Amino acid sequence: MSAIFERVALIGLGLIGSSLARVLKRDGLARHIAGHARSQATRDKAMELGFLDSVHETPGACAAGADLVVVCAPLGAYAEIGAAISKSLKAGAIVSDVGSVKQAAIRDLGPHIPAGVHLVPGHPIAGTEHSGPEAGFAELFQGRWCILTPPPGADGAAVERLAELWRRCGSQVEIMEAQHHDVVLAITSHLPHLIAYTIVGTATDLEETLQKEVVKFSASGFRDFTRIAASDPTMWRDIFLNNREAVLEMLGRFSEDLTALQRAIRWGEGEKLHELFTRTRAIRRSIVEAKQA
Amino acid sequence: MSAIFERVALIGLGLIGSSLARVLKRDGLARHIAGHARSQATRDKAMELGFLDSVHETPGACAAGADLVVVCAPLGAYAEIGAAISKSLKAGAIVSDVGSVKQAAIRDLGPHIPAGVHLVPGHPIAGTEHSGPEAGFAELFQGRWCILTPPPGADGAAVERLAELWRRCGSQVEIMEAQHHDVVLAITSHLPHLIAYTIVGTATDLEETLQKEVVKFSASGFRDFTRIAASDPTMWRDIFLNNREAVLEMLGRFSEDLTALQRAIRWGEGEKLHELFTRTRAIRRSIVEAKQA
Repeated sequence: MSAIFERVALIGLGLIGSSLARVLKRDGLARHIAGHARSQATRDKAMELGFLDSVHETPGACAAGADLVVVCAPLGAYAEIGAAISKSLKAGAIVSDVGSVKQAAIRDLGPHIPAGVHLVPGHPIAGTEHSGPEAGFAELFQGRWCILTPPPGADGAAVERLAELWRRCGSQVEIMEAQHHDVVLAITSHLPHLIAYTIVGTATDLEETLQKEVVKFSASGFRDFTRIAASDPTMWRDIFLNNREAVLEMLGRFSEDLTALQRAIRWGEGEKLHELFTRTRAIRRSIVEAKQA
Repeated sequence: MSAIFERVALIGLGLIGSSLARVLKRDGLARHIAGHARSQATRDKAMELGFLDSVHETPGACAAGADLVVVCAPLGAYAEIGAAISKSLKAGAIVSDVGSVKQAAIRDLGPHIPAGVHLVPGHPIAGTEHSGPEAGFAELFQGRWCILTPPPGADGAAVERLAELWRRCGSQVEIMEAQHHDVVLAITSHLPHLIAYTIVGTATDLEETLQKEVVKFSASGFRDFTRIAASDPTMWRDIFLNNREAVLEMLGRFSEDLTALQRAIRWGEGEKLHELFTRTRAIRRSIVEAKQA
């Protein structure tokens, strides 16, 4: 297959950045893959793992001359990265990212994008509970969705070129408004993570003997939550801080529903419980049918 | 391998009952496997699937002459089943079950167990989101825990014989007090299911277009909850109604923790979020180390 970009710069080399590097390299989708990570240890590890062509100590040096720059760092670092790459960006370059809150990406990167450079934020709906450059793999995006949220007036050719890259990585691409993306992700991803973190936290506060039994008998449901609650703490802190409004809205709905269920249990309202538990089965069927299970 | 029981009677032929029948048959752990289900359709299906030696229209006829009777029905049916089998139970027989609330099992079956018959409630920590006789498979209990909760003064030989059966089904057996079991399961299983049902319910209340996107992008976290929330509605209604106290206690703790997290998000308290998200990673590691992941 032929390269889609001459030089791709990856700012951040964790699970997503290193997976992207691996698939770009494996399929020859970029002629040169440059990478940056904040710590020397990560930069060394990345070069040792062999998925980069060059490694750089600063985001600016990494982005210089690239025709695609992808920010693969926690959302809290975006403003600083934007400032650091701003002067290195070559005319006609595309700047994108992989973060889970798109309004924040536009807010924090946007002001640093010079005229003639195209900001096209992106979000591959893919991941695992593992972090770091060793955790990545080239197949991560295969069969998954990638959402692009170009701001109003974005260059159509730039959007299409980035979409083509993600399709070549194995993903299906969906174009969406940033604000809408953030609401959809609040319910499909951010709220589930918040709840999983909470229940696992509740369990860690139990007396010690009970805690050991929670681990032992976790296969009965709890286990599924611990996988989600093992995701990268910094990344998730930044997601909640940057999608506050949509998360609090969905959390409010959830809390109301939970209180209603609590009341039904307290008063022994079996029919109410049965009705809900039957309704939730249908959504699972839709997911299985949509081949997302 | 040699049989451990002459005649085993299974009252209920859903996921658990039919899986137990399959492993008993495959490994010759009982010389005769009798089964009962309430509906003719299930009884026909069970005979067609071939994991029973005989099928019976009433629990009493099924239990007659058995040296082990295992109740594999929703908790709400226990009292009625207890009354129905009481007169058929042979001296020296063991009566057990597979339900998720052990105090309720003792409360509802106990009064119907004649002198000389041994009540040894049990709970295999195994299952899938599928229900019915077709959903069972002989390997379901392999590598899983099975908890037995013999009431005070239970016959040691009967407990050991039942434990041996579960070990031969591939499980590790743990003996526990019923009250303690119900607290452990409230946090490891009942609360996770309650929360999963709630969040999936919250999603089904969203406007239709948003709901379609929830299905489409469910791989970002939501999906894991829908699997749990697809479990059998009747079984779960009965669990919540019968373990009310322990579930409400754990739910109370969870709600407090969720409110604290909500507050941290609203006020942008990043450190608090990061601290919790780091703490929850440790529990996942324990589960992976305990080989329950």
